[in-house]
Amino acid sequence: MNFRIEKDTMGPVEVPADKYWGAQTERSRNNFKIGPEASMPKEIIHAFAYLKKAAAHANHDLGALSAEKRDLISKVCDEILTGALDDQFPLVIWQTGSGTQSNMNVNEVVAYRAHVLSGGKLTDEKKILHPNDDVNKSQSSNDTFPTAMHIAAYMQVVQVTLPGMEKLRNTLQKKAEAYKDIVKTGRTHFMDATPLTLGQEFSGYVQQLTNSIRTINNALQMVAELALGGTAVGTGLNTPKGYDVLVAKKIAEFTKYPFVTAPNKFEALAAHDAMVELSGALKRAAVSLMKIANDIRMLSSGPRCGIGEIIIPDNEPGSSIMPGKVNPTQPEALTMVAAQVMGNDVAVSIGGSNGHFELNVFKPLIAANVLQSARLIGDACVSFNDKCAEGIEPNLPVIQTHMENSLMLVTALNTHIGYENAAKIAKKAHKENKTLREAAIELGLLTNEQFDAWVKPHEMIGSLK
Amino acid sequence: MNFRIEKDTMGPVEVPADKYWGAQTERSRNNFKIGPEASMPKEIIHAFAYLKKAAAHANHDLGALSAEKRDLISKVCDEILTGALDDQFPLVIWQTGSGTQSNMNVNEVVAYRAHVLSGGKLTDEKKILHPNDDVNKSQSSNDTFPTAMHIAAYMQVVQVTLPGMEKLRNTLQKKAEAYKDIVKTGRTHFMDATPLTLGQEFSGYVQQLTNSIRTINNALQMVAELALGGTAVGTGLNTPKGYDVLVAKKIAEFTKYPFVTAPNKFEALAAHDAMVELSGALKRAAVSLMKIANDIRMLSSGPRCGIGEIIIPDNEPGSSIMPGKVNPTQPEALTMVAAQVMGNDVAVSIGGSNGHFELNVFKPLIAANVLQSARLIGDACVSFNDKCAEGIEPNLPVIQTHMENSLMLVTALNTHIGYENAAKIAKKAHKENKTLREAAIELGLLTNEQFDAWVKPHEMIGSLK
Amino acid sequence: MNFRIEKDTMGPVEVPADKYWGAQTERSRNNFKIGPEASMPKEIIHAFAYLKKAAAHANHDLGALSAEKRDLISKVCDEILTGALDDQFPLVIWQTGSGTQSNMNVNEVVAYRAHVLSGGKLTDEKKILHPNDDVNKSQSSNDTFPTAMHIAAYMQVVQVTLPGMEKLRNTLQKKAEAYKDIVKTGRTHFMDATPLTLGQEFSGYVQQLTNSIRTINNALQMVAELALGGTAVGTGLNTPKGYDVLVAKKIAEFTKYPFVTAPNKFEALAAHDAMVELSGALKRAAVSLMKIANDIRMLSSGPRCGIGEIIIPDNEPGSSIMPGKVNPTQPEALTMVAAQVMGNDVAVSIGGSNGHFELNVFKPLIAANVLQSARLIGDACVSFNDKCAEGIEPNLPVIQTHMENSLMLVTALNTHIGYENAAKIAKKAHKENKTLREAAIELGLLTNEQFDAWVKPHEMIGSLK
Amino acid sequence: MNFRIEKDTMGPVEVPADKYWGAQTERSRNNFKIGPEASMPKEIIHAFAYLKKAAAHANHDLGALSAEKRDLISKVCDEILTGALDDQFPLVIWQTGSGTQSNMNVNEVVAYRAHVLSGGKLTDEKKILHPNDDVNKSQSSNDTFPTAMHIAAYMQVVQVTLPGMEKLRNTLQKKAEAYKDIVKTGRTHFMDATPLTLGQEFSGYVQQLTNSIRTINNALQMVAELALGGTAVGTGLNTPKGYDVLVAKKIAEFTKYPFVTAPNKFEALAAHDAMVELSGALKRAAVSLMKIANDIRMLSSGPRCGIGEIIIPDNEPGSSIMPGKVNPTQPEALTMVAAQVMGNDVAVSIGGSNGHFELNVFKPLIAANVLQSARLIGDACVSFNDKCAEGIEPNLPVIQTHMENSLMLVTALNTHIGYENAAKIAKKAHKENKTLREAAIELGLLTNEQFDAWVKPHEMIGSLK
Repeated sequence: MNFRIEKDTMGPVEVPADKYWGAQTERSRNNFKIGPEASMPKEIIHAFAYLKKAAAHANHDLGALSAEKRDLISKVCDEILTGALDDQFPLVIWQTGSGTQSNMNVNEVVAYRAHVLSGGKLTDEKKILHPNDDVNKSQSSNDTFPTAMHIAAYMQVVQVTLPGMEKLRNTLQKKAEAYKDIVKTGRTHFMDATPLTLGQEFSGYVQQLTNSIRTINNALQMVAELALGGTAVGTGLNTPKGYDVLVAKKIAEFTKYPFVTAPNKFEALAAHDAMVELSGALKRAAVSLMKIANDIRMLSSGPRCGIGEIIIPDNEPGSSIMPGKVNPTQPEALTMVAAQVMGNDVAVSIGGSNGHFELNVFKPLIAANVLQSARLIGDACVSFNDKCAEGIEPNLPVIQTHMENSLMLVTALNTHIGYENAAKIAKKAHKENKTLREAAIELGLLTNEQFDAWVKPHEMIGSLK
Repeated sequence: MNFRIEKDTMGPVEVPADKYWGAQTERSRNNFKIGPEASMPKEIIHAFAYLKKAAAHANHDLGALSAEKRDLISKVCDEILTGALDDQFPLVIWQTGSGTQSNMNVNEVVAYRAHVLSGGKLTDEKKILHPNDDVNKSQSSNDTFPTAMHIAAYMQVVQVTLPGMEKLRNTLQKKAEAYKDIVKTGRTHFMDATPLTLGQEFSGYVQQLTNSIRTINNALQMVAELALGGTAVGTGLNTPKGYDVLVAKKIAEFTKYPFVTAPNKFEALAAHDAMVELSGALKRAAVSLMKIANDIRMLSSGPRCGIGEIIIPDNEPGSSIMPGKVNPTQPEALTMVAAQVMGNDVAVSIGGSNGHFELNVFKPLIAANVLQSARLIGDACVSFNDKCAEGIEPNLPVIQTHMENSLMLVTALNTHIGYENAAKIAKKAHKENKTLREAAIELGLLTNEQFDAWVKPHEMIGSLK
Repeated sequence: MNFRIEKDTMGPVEVPADKYWGAQTERSRNNFKIGPEASMPKEIIHAFAYLKKAAAHANHDLGALSAEKRDLISKVCDEILTGALDDQFPLVIWQTGSGTQSNMNVNEVVAYRAHVLSGGKLTDEKKILHPNDDVNKSQSSNDTFPTAMHIAAYMQVVQVTLPGMEKLRNTLQKKAEAYKDIVKTGRTHFMDATPLTLGQEFSGYVQQLTNSIRTINNALQMVAELALGGTAVGTGLNTPKGYDVLVAKKIAEFTKYPFVTAPNKFEALAAHDAMVELSGALKRAAVSLMKIANDIRMLSSGPRCGIGEIIIPDNEPGSSIMPGKVNPTQPEALTMVAAQVMGNDVAVSIGGSNGHFELNVFKPLIAANVLQSARLIGDACVSFNDKCAEGIEPNLPVIQTHMENSLMLVTALNTHIGYENAAKIAKKAHKENKTLREAAIELGLLTNEQFDAWVKPHEMIGSLK
Repeated sequence: MNFRIEKDTMGPVEVPADKYWGAQTERSRNNFKIGPEASMPKEIIHAFAYLKKAAAHANHDLGALSAEKRDLISKVCDEILTGALDDQFPLVIWQTGSGTQSNMNVNEVVAYRAHVLSGGKLTDEKKILHPNDDVNKSQSSNDTFPTAMHIAAYMQVVQVTLPGMEKLRNTLQKKAEAYKDIVKTGRTHFMDATPLTLGQEFSGYVQQLTNSIRTINNALQMVAELALGGTAVGTGLNTPKGYDVLVAKKIAEFTKYPFVTAPNKFEALAAHDAMVELSGALKRAAVSLMKIANDIRMLSSGPRCGIGEIIIPDNEPGSSIMPGKVNPTQPEALTMVAAQVMGNDVAVSIGGSNGHFELNVFKPLIAANVLQSARLIGDACVSFNDKCAEGIEPNLPVIQTHMENSLMLVTALNTHIGYENAAKIAKKAHKENKTLREAAIELGLLTNEQFDAWVKPHEMIGSLK
């Protein structure tokens, strides 16, 4: 491999000749060989592109940067946003806890790529932009990295998580409506219970997702608040007056999302409670999805020795040894995602709780976990929706058989003959493997006509929607 | 011990002669000897008292219960709320996952205590009220227990958690204002950084608590929604029309909190996402408190070999062997509470994710953990506030010495002489154990006058509040 | 309430006149009103009794304490071990993170109770023993509390956890043997799969418990190592030569468990990795128990609309509204316990990871969670065993029906007619709701005789035990 | 892109023309677009290569596979192990929970690559090997995937985790020895405490790592047990007699690690407690590493306003705005890794607890998290070792100054003048900002000579090593 020499305040470093990054990026590559290369999420890099461009614009508007430099920085940032420079960001999550090195990676790539775009060579000692003095102007890693975290997380949630959840919610809503007249046995404690409709059962899932979406939206409010302008310790040292408000406005303009400057920069650097809250909201969604996916797989269990009240689509041969078997693979993927999100939330919380003084230094950990959770939930909801939920069909014969066999219809009799008499009927039917009707009549507790008049599954599901 | 005989649908049971509970409570006592006795939180029992009274009133208003029975039930419920009957609830958390047995414990105590208050004897076979047919009328364990969970959690949060957090927040707010002119060294990565005021540092804590309080309030919205009226599977079987709305209104009236009926009873029985969300909000608060408490203990460390920038109150002899040593015991208690709340959140999430079909059967687990988290945070905030935060004093001589020694004032020079020159000064001063001024002048990078003009700690903390 | 005055190095304190505790205990009571009173586990107090007695004996043997004082201390410690003084320990978990105040509580109670036993009065200014100089001799909170943690955890595990797990394991082992010839359908992905015996299914549970027991025993090895002798920072300052080894030997002698002195006292004070490991081992057991309990409740589901292959005992009326319904309440209690233990493990790990320098100050948190986990697992295993596992019965008609209906017997044909042909048969049978035999013959893939010869459920379960 | 047509039991599928995978892999690619492509860990794929080769050999030895087919399979497996076919495995973690599709991916690639190596074309309808009938012979996804999990995890731990931890342990051991005579102030509760040597402080870290390594080794014992031979439900259906023992022996031979067949295949498929235990052991190591890394960063804090008793290497410019600042970046990376491992453990435990009946279907989740934890710990220990621990130097002047200033030397006086008198001296010195000597003499509690004779820091660290 060919190398060129780059320098920083610590001295010269050999850098791959064809890469735009500089000395500090290269040092980090060598110093942190932890896990796979380039694990720092690309969403963070792209968020940095928005913020570097916004900072350049704000700096220019406030008289701190020339129009030429502003435009050079913007041009490279736009290029980063296309994904064309993704291979210029080789660093890992497991670096300094402030993400300083990824901030410098961006600064270096912007400065040196701008130099090349302006006709210079990477080997020129003097570049048209200085990574720190120009690209990082009015910034510190300590306020840029949390800003990038918030931008990336906000966008991931709005573009991936919520649309995925809403898609699934809407499909389940359609199912809830379509199945509103299918009366089936309820199950509590995994045991047969009084009836409800399949639509009512699905309406519970819809409500869960609606609520989870609301919680995520609540959490986004604070994620929309940006640390930028706080610089090193939150005081805004070395920033022009009005910069924090303006730079957030620029970010809002470029991203088209309602970002604003954080009300307190000390909190915004030293704590990542907003990300902890978002992670918690995603975890709450994971809890909801685990319930829903478990129900779907259990309801579809069988084909002959399970519950089997719904049929889910066959997407693949289920087993390498058991021909004809089709498994609830989408619910499985979704429940695995849920477990991951629940674990990620613990990692985020531990990281969030361990900030000290003016800086939390678990930033890349927090960012990576929240972004993964947000993406996995969104993707898994779409996958589950498209390949499973949409294709769910009720298995009407099984539903009907279960309904008729259920002993729990006896509860319809409570108000007529009292709890204890009703219990006697159910017990007798159970013990002697008889129908409720048979047991009731044999016990002399009611007549055939009374049974018909009082035990009506379709009337046992009605007082609430 | 003397016993009397009580019966339920399974037959007769020996019950302690002087206790108001009946057969089902006694069975549960014998069947679940797990952990200490009577661990079911008393807050749940008291919440049941509100809901049984409300149900009696709603049942009466809707023509399903006589005024006499309503009043008898109400009377015993009021008595339960005084705490006078606390020893009548011997059951544990680790019972059936629907909390059925605690619901029956309440039903039995209300029915049998009412009988005694009406002049009957516990040994009378026929009691004036029937636990199921009267006290539990229009109810099921499956909707009462989650209702009790929500009432108890809501009240604990509003009466204990939030007042405790607000008290601490207000004290820290006062400190932030009082210390607004005390300039001190910042610390990032646990290393010396550019200055800020002690007031700014504390303002970050205030913002953390303000945000955590907001998140908890967001979570309360859904905790205010009650399952009652869903009965066994969410359909409202065996309830009078309009009952769910009315009973929630009665609960709101009796508790004076804005409880309403849940929009979807299927969700309200089968999932406890509202409690998972509340637990997550409490966990977020725990994360904030861990940061704050860690900072306080580290800032007060010493007395001679630590950071020592603040002084916290001496509340007790710190060590049994080291005379004169006083430890940050309140921060320690608070961080232990934070760790507990973070663990509880995992337990709650696991329980919340494992509901099946029409019922989540991790209810007592979820209730107990959320209630513990809510109480511990509230109590620990008050303790930390009263015994530590209020008494915090700045250690001005130490703050001043640190401030003057800090090399990081050099960042004030970035905008004057560039990043790399500033770095040279800082490095030289560090290496040769000199002041920044000495190093700068020796390097010929600036004059004495320039140093005075440019390096002004009090001007390095100003652009943001 | 009547008070007397006690003093410590900070001055006088009013103490309830009839209590044996002194000034430091009383300060802690007033300073830490967090959660319910007296929450510090009694197991810790009793462990302290062993160690105070052992220290007194070791001190005497090494010439540091008179025989008279040794005997006085021992006498009170023996009394504490009877439980007679349990109401003398009012402190909470949420105190100083070193547990100093509970150590002092013990020191004070031992000293002052000894004084009373010797004929003195609590109001005497001078007591026969000094809490620090005598009872705490050659000790510090920093080494006594972790020693008490280890003693208490070791004994709880050996006396409660392991016997409970072994009892359940043995019951399941008996079931595995009893059911070794009951062929039933297997289930993978919750779907019908190839057959196995009910005994084989239970043998998996037995193996899980056997392995979990082994892991807990591995963890106990390091829990048997005691910090005592390290005193304040691990150096053993102020202890006689040989004290650490001797005092561990005394503890082993008094408790009859193989305690030894820890090989490195710095680790033993500053980290609680041994407790973290034990908590992890208990969590692993919880994971095993969650699987087993879930299987049992799902296998027993029904009675008519579930899987229903086993019958579990009826212990209580299952529902307040659904007569005749009996729920898997023991599995529910066990799975709630499992969730709690999994959450506790997170709390313990967070506490364990946050020690600083010479001392971890999350000791009471760690102790309380490990002790709760250990007890809950032990108790819940016994409850589940006695009230559920022992009474499990196979539901032979259901097992037989499922077995005969299962399409998965088709896998027996793989080696005869190839995977793809076998798949065709299964699919046809499934689609047309036919038996495998019918489908196979209609497809012309085999004869009636071949079907009989090749599809033998009882021969599909044999190559492994 | 060019495509060819492949078929499975569900029909034809378009597959990229130049890829070796077949219909089932392609279906999974299309059905599970969750998170980044090809996220299934390569370690799992390589482990599959070992096991497919071993199965081919065992099948041949037992007369079930021709020598020619055995050799073809082996040849491709060897090629997979070189990494040359890594781009043939495009599937994600979030697929079916049994990992069936990755098993089929391997089966297809082995079969089709073998066909090409034998001179065939990918477009030939008939291939020289059949993915199921040959490559997957005597196997099921249900036993191969857990076997691959165990092989991969075992090898990752033995090749990456343990060597990394041992390297760091050995470095710390050298430091402990090198610093055995450097007396310094101890710190408990983050407060000044009695002295110890820097070597003693480091010896605690050594003990932590030694213990964590032991725990991991304990966990490996069960990870060495392989499910292979259990096939679909643990009964070993469709395997030759003796196959399970033999195939494990072959795997041991090919990998050179002591793998054996699992004693109970039902447990080995239905539960992943061995992986849960390994994850727990890695979590315990993470807890140890968090403590160590926190101490190192706090001990090195400063340079002028912190504790500053050690100096760690400067590896990079620490901040983009604060010149001259060098941060504890390696401890930060290590503590982030620790937080991740703690979160991963929760995900693994949740997955582990949710197996049902004969199969746990959280396998890929469990595998991915354990493998990540194992690698991150190993890599981070090496990074921390090479770039930080090895270069640690004591900052002797600071250590000396702290030592001399510490009030805690007063504890040396306890045995001479009693606890309460010693406390008076310490308090006076603290209050009046005097030395202990001055305070002692002013109080008349001892003479100058006594002070010299009794207060000897170097003698306060000696009774334990």
